[in-house]
Amino acid sequence: MAATGLISALLLFLLICSSSISSSEKTRRPQPCKRLVLYFHDIVYNGKNAQNATSAIVASPAWGNKTTLATPIFFGDVVVFDDPITLDNNLRSTPVGRARGFYLYDRKDFFSAWFGFSFAFNSTRLNGTINFAGADDIMKTTRDLSVVGGTGDFFMTRGIATLMTDAFEDDRYFRLRVDVKAIRMLLAKDFVHG
Amino acid sequence: MAATGLISALLLFLLICSSSISSSEKTRRPQPCKRLVLYFHDIVYNGKNAQNATSAIVASPAWGNKTTLATPIFFGDVVVFDDPITLDNNLRSTPVGRARGFYLYDRKDFFSAWFGFSFAFNSTRLNGTINFAGADDIMKTTRDLSVVGGTGDFFMTRGIATLMTDAFEDDRYFRLRVDVKAIRMLLAKDFVHG
Amino acid sequence: MAATGLISALLLFLLICSSSISSSEKTRRPQPCKRLVLYFHDIVYNGKNAQNATSAIVASPAWGNKTTLATPIFFGDVVVFDDPITLDNNLRSTPVGRARGFYLYDRKDFFSAWFGFSFAFNSTRLNGTINFAGADDIMKTTRDLSVVGGTGDFFMTRGIATLMTDAFEDDRYFRLRVDVKAIRMLLAKDFVHG
Repeated sequence: MAATGLISALLLFLLICSSSISSSEKTRRPQPCKRLVLYFHDIVYNGKNAQNATSAIVASPAWGNKTTLATPIFFGDVVVFDDPITLDNNLRSTPVGRARGFYLYDRKDFFSAWFGFSFAFNSTRLNGTINFAGADDIMKTTRDLSVVGGTGDFFMTRGIATLMTDAFEDDRYFRLRVDVKAIRMLLAKDFVHG
Repeated sequence: MAATGLISALLLFLLICSSSISSSEKTRRPQPCKRLVLYFHDIVYNGKNAQNATSAIVASPAWGNKTTLATPIFFGDVVVFDDPITLDNNLRSTPVGRARGFYLYDRKDFFSAWFGFSFAFNSTRLNGTINFAGADDIMKTTRDLSVVGGTGDFFMTRGIATLMTDAFEDDRYFRLRVDVKAIRMLLAKDFVHG
Repeated sequence: MAATGLISALLLFLLICSSSISSSEKTRRPQPCKRLVLYFHDIVYNGKNAQNATSAIVASPAWGNKTTLATPIFFGDVVVFDDPITLDNNLRSTPVGRARGFYLYDRKDFFSAWFGFSFAFNSTRLNGTINFAGADDIMKTTRDLSVVGGTGDFFMTRGIATLMTDAFEDDRYFRLRVDVKAIRMLLAKDFVHG
């Protein structure tokens, strides 16, 4: 499968990244990790797409409801999501994990959101999560969220995730390209032997 | 405008702060930033103030609703906000950005909240976001939240935000004074050349 | 009371931990903290248990409601909690603080959650908060969340919290064992004298 090749490429990247982290033992300075570019796909439940939907409105302001985003610009809607993460921009590609958490529309005058979520990888060879939080100015070409932590292969990771809206179909579907620039602040051994 | 002078003062502070960060290249130790004191203003939607409201109840417990905070002490209410940030304690001052995100009332016995939000600066000369998370013991004079990350001018920032309730009018309006004590853990160049 | 002895033990641990932090002044490298093992207890409001409940469903998808978790696996339900933290696994033990914040069920196919919350300690001798965020794969024996920050005695703390489900009674009660492995990235004096 094509996905296997892509997963190998991703793992190779991660091995390189891990090597550079291991070599940091001598200096104990944080070491850079190269970019990790992934996509995730969000299909909001609209009352008719229970099978395909990957997310659902779970809260809304007094003037909203749970099957259509609030007019005029969705302010106050809270969406819980369980979105597939893919290595390319194809919704049908084999997922390498799930983007899980919530976003809420947080501006009265502009399309804008606030995210709290995790990338949870489910490959047998790639484990762990990356945790994100921050504001997403949807109308800007790129915008940065914080990597607030990580677990497993991403233990003690910090950095920036640059989001781009790669596709947007009304309020039915969006696809975000996420460019993670992460750095490991500490090694696990710092916890054990420190 | 008075706001211009204040913005200049803020920018001067930030330049000083940036300088101390630049000088840290030699030692590569995190450098302190002085205090950044700002205010934000929250007016909850109550069914009648759609124009003035800066926030809205979007979720509530079974015994609550979306136009009045739940009795007796708001437990379970979730509020999404898009609040103006000002340099002084005047709601009418020119905003330097927006405080965006959510808070929820999280205690059954005391007035208390939990915040996840960003300061998003919208000045042409001041860009970026500061991301916050943590518990807000409303009844205490001061309480600390975590700065969990930042972007743009606040790249890789960490620290503490000390909140004070600067004004409180029933459940219609509150103003928080936020004293950010932030520190940059890494420089952008650490990511590029590391 | 037994709780007093246990609290003493906990404080002793924290003193040891603080000592190792103090000695780090010379090298200014982050120092490890030993483990901090605690339990918290969650009883969801079901329409009949207002006195005992420590949490409440505050948001749910279109097919859910606020007194029963959504079928089939709770996807989309958001719960705000104010749970007692105890030093052992006994719900009736004297709490040493509150676990406060929210979780939401974030998977369509598996029992799984996403947490944003704080441990807020309320002992006169133990102050401060630890702030957590991350994904909780409920069905796994252990799973890691990020410590995204801390305040007070946990100033600038980072690390990992390993969760275990210590007890689970249908959808009425659960008890989580939390094994915090935290490290202080900086000392307060770094902010003052840096």
